Amino acid sequence: MGWGDIDVNGEPHRETPELRRMAEEGCILTDFYTAAPLCSPCEPIFSFTGNLNDTRAAVLTGRLPVRTGFYSTNARGRNAYTPQEIMGGIYDEEVLISELLSQANYTTKIVGKWHLGHRPPYLPLRHGFKEWFGSPNCHFGPYSNSVEDRPNIPVYHDSIMVGRCDYLFHVAKEAVQFLIDLAKTGAPFFLYWAPDSTHSPHYASPKFRGKSSRGLYGDAIMELDNSIGIILTTLKELKLDKNTYVFFTSDNGAALVDGDQGGSNGPFLCGKQTTFEGGMRVPGIAWAPGRIPAGSTVQRDYRTVLMQEMSSSQFNMYSQEKPVFYYRGDLLMTVRLNLYKAHLWTWATPEYELVKGINFCPGMSLQDIVTSEQKNHTKSPILFHLGRDPGEKFPIPSSSAEYKKVMPALERVVAEHIGNLIPGKPALNWCDQHVM
Amino acid sequence: MGWGDIDVNGEPHRETPELRRMAEEGCILTDFYTAAPLCSPCEPIFSFTGNLNDTRAAVLTGRLPVRTGFYSTNARGRNAYTPQEIMGGIYDEEVLISELLSQANYTTKIVGKWHLGHRPPYLPLRHGFKEWFGSPNCHFGPYSNSVEDRPNIPVYHDSIMVGRCDYLFHVAKEAVQFLIDLAKTGAPFFLYWAPDSTHSPHYASPKFRGKSSRGLYGDAIMELDNSIGIILTTLKELKLDKNTYVFFTSDNGAALVDGDQGGSNGPFLCGKQTTFEGGMRVPGIAWAPGRIPAGSTVQRDYRTVLMQEMSSSQFNMYSQEKPVFYYRGDLLMTVRLNLYKAHLWTWATPEYELVKGINFCPGMSLQDIVTSEQKNHTKSPILFHLGRDPGEKFPIPSSSAEYKKVMPALERVVAEHIGNLIPGKPALNWCDQHVM
Repeated sequence: MGWGDIDVNGEPHRETPELRRMAEEGCILTDFYTAAPLCSPCEPIFSFTGNLNDTRAAVLTGRLPVRTGFYSTNARGRNAYTPQEIMGGIYDEEVLISELLSQANYTTKIVGKWHLGHRPPYLPLRHGFKEWFGSPNCHFGPYSNSVEDRPNIPVYHDSIMVGRCDYLFHVAKEAVQFLIDLAKTGAPFFLYWAPDSTHSPHYASPKFRGKSSRGLYGDAIMELDNSIGIILTTLKELKLDKNTYVFFTSDNGAALVDGDQGGSNGPFLCGKQTTFEGGMRVPGIAWAPGRIPAGSTVQRDYRTVLMQEMSSSQFNMYSQEKPVFYYRGDLLMTVRLNLYKAHLWTWATPEYELVKGINFCPGMSLQDIVTSEQKNHTKSPILFHLGRDPGEKFPIPSSSAEYKKVMPALERVVAEHIGNLIPGKPALNWCDQHVM
Repeated sequence: MGWGDIDVNGEPHRETPELRRMAEEGCILTDFYTAAPLCSPCEPIFSFTGNLNDTRAAVLTGRLPVRTGFYSTNARGRNAYTPQEIMGGIYDEEVLISELLSQANYTTKIVGKWHLGHRPPYLPLRHGFKEWFGSPNCHFGPYSNSVEDRPNIPVYHDSIMVGRCDYLFHVAKEAVQFLIDLAKTGAPFFLYWAPDSTHSPHYASPKFRGKSSRGLYGDAIMELDNSIGIILTTLKELKLDKNTYVFFTSDNGAALVDGDQGGSNGPFLCGKQTTFEGGMRVPGIAWAPGRIPAGSTVQRDYRTVLMQEMSSSQFNMYSQEKPVFYYRGDLLMTVRLNLYKAHLWTWATPEYELVKGINFCPGMSLQDIVTSEQKNHTKSPILFHLGRDPGEKFPIPSSSAEYKKVMPALERVVAEHIGNLIPGKPALNWCDQHVM
């Protein structure tokens, strides 16, 4: 789902009242980013987790794809989806938050999509989770079990396959039961709740079908919103709310390739698959009653709401100057520093997608920027000011005083970032290691 | 200002906390429209007014431009601004809300821009207002009184010219003093508060300059927001809040021709001057503590919040099927019925503007729709579903079952609307009656 798909971010049909309530009781993070503009495990989301986490794909390593090997290079910046036939998965060397919390005696559960490798060594119970309800892969449909179709992906209960994908109406119930069981024991817990019903093919259970003004996609969003309300209410009823940290986000911008069922990135340029704001800026809501001030907003460094124990000197070290790096595959496309964003490379929809009628940026055009070829701007990056121009429509002229004043700092953070990549890395990517 | 310029509609920098508070205490109108996509008096805004009304241009007749003569036809749909040299103004036959309320012994005041004719017969004190502080025209700058420049437009106190335009920092104070004076008398009042500092050339007083992430435009929005907070707080302090109806809106979508200082129309297509959603859908917030439920939202028919005394049968007659008509000049371009919008004509930026570097739809493209020529689609209107596609990116194919099902109702409301235009109307327009 996209940044603009929730009403606190301006979705005009206002069909997400539970997320609104969550924001009113917690904090909106207006400038929250994924680590890559795709949902597949080839991009573990750069994010922060707590006791409960609603995201689409994994948030588990806290590392950039180029550091973990979760990226595709069969064409630089190609942004491949993970096919069902993939052979690899999460490296044992990676430290997942589920492992750290499991070692600290948290009860850890994943509900929903895993997508960090579907073969036995890579499944969740081998990587820090004690419980699992969901599917190992991205579900590409159909939602039918007819013999004519490719079978739906499997659904697991822990290490046992219990059926095939038609399960989405259970995901809220699974979370609630987990919380009820945990509350009895008083044990600390980590719930990673990652439904994928807003991923094409969209799914809504009968109770929600036809309810939205926005079509089936909107129905799926309404059901997701409703489920979040159920989970938060459960936490309150179990008196766990004062001791639980909840974070809501998405794994990438809305997929505009789905036409009028593609969701919304609000005022931002393009969508999923791209390194424009529409591809990587996503909803972010943090909730922790009594610790996070109700109705608050954070623009940039999320650590203000996440790491209150950090000393103020440490905080200052990071808060203003923390850059955001935007990758496609192993190619550093773009960097953001404060309100400035410099595109070293730009690329919208490749020609081989356009000829199939697929467009990552429908209705959008920008000379030399929204193009079907990959454009190299490294000699003179395209600079935008995201404050005056969040939609990335008006490049700052490279001849301007502003450009000349700002670019050195952006160039410095890029050089530092590249210099800091561990020798021997980028890791060998495993996303391309599949049966062709 | 545009629909997307306030944070309750998703402006990502969240710099309008007072309008957020107003919405939390009142009602957001997500689908509120102007009657034309321009700020000049050539479009009295189709709107509803109460005891206090914050808009940019006039909201005073409640009639479409083609009925009042407030339109331009020197080229069909040309959307002319009103030049300073205009000779005409509001017809005496028009009934303004200021006149009706004045007859009902309301004290009526306009603060800000009038723009319904600057020659003596047309000024506010001849049309129902007892008091006036502001300017007769649109201010096209500069904000300088140097002898080299064309002089700034005059500023009036009632019927006396008291200076030239540099007054914007007074508009909140003028409103507050009016409310304080009125509260002493207990008389009913109508305040039409219409600052124009977000119109180019933008203006913010020194206290707000440089405060926004969004540049001078954002500073002007912050000051506007701050002023609204002052006015609402004053109403509360004077204990007038339980007996006052306040409505906030804008006169047109954001003017994207101003580049990165043009404001935001959120997810909507194009901006000011066009009949796409970005041109005519504007912010709407209604506030009446104790009468309008706090934190409410209305999607379509605003009468739910405005006319609670209307009988439910009357209400039902209007609520679902009320169409919206989108004009440029005297040309009916587009009609909306429920969630469907049919473009009879489309037109983005005329060639003669493009050659000057002016673009009403920067970064936007849509074959045969966002074009520099006026396109006639009356034989097969372009149909969008604003629920699934609020950004007007994906036309519903005319061969589809949905198109065939929906179009007859849209054609019917267009025929009824045209049939209902009073014989002899469209009125002779006065916008073109100026010294050339």
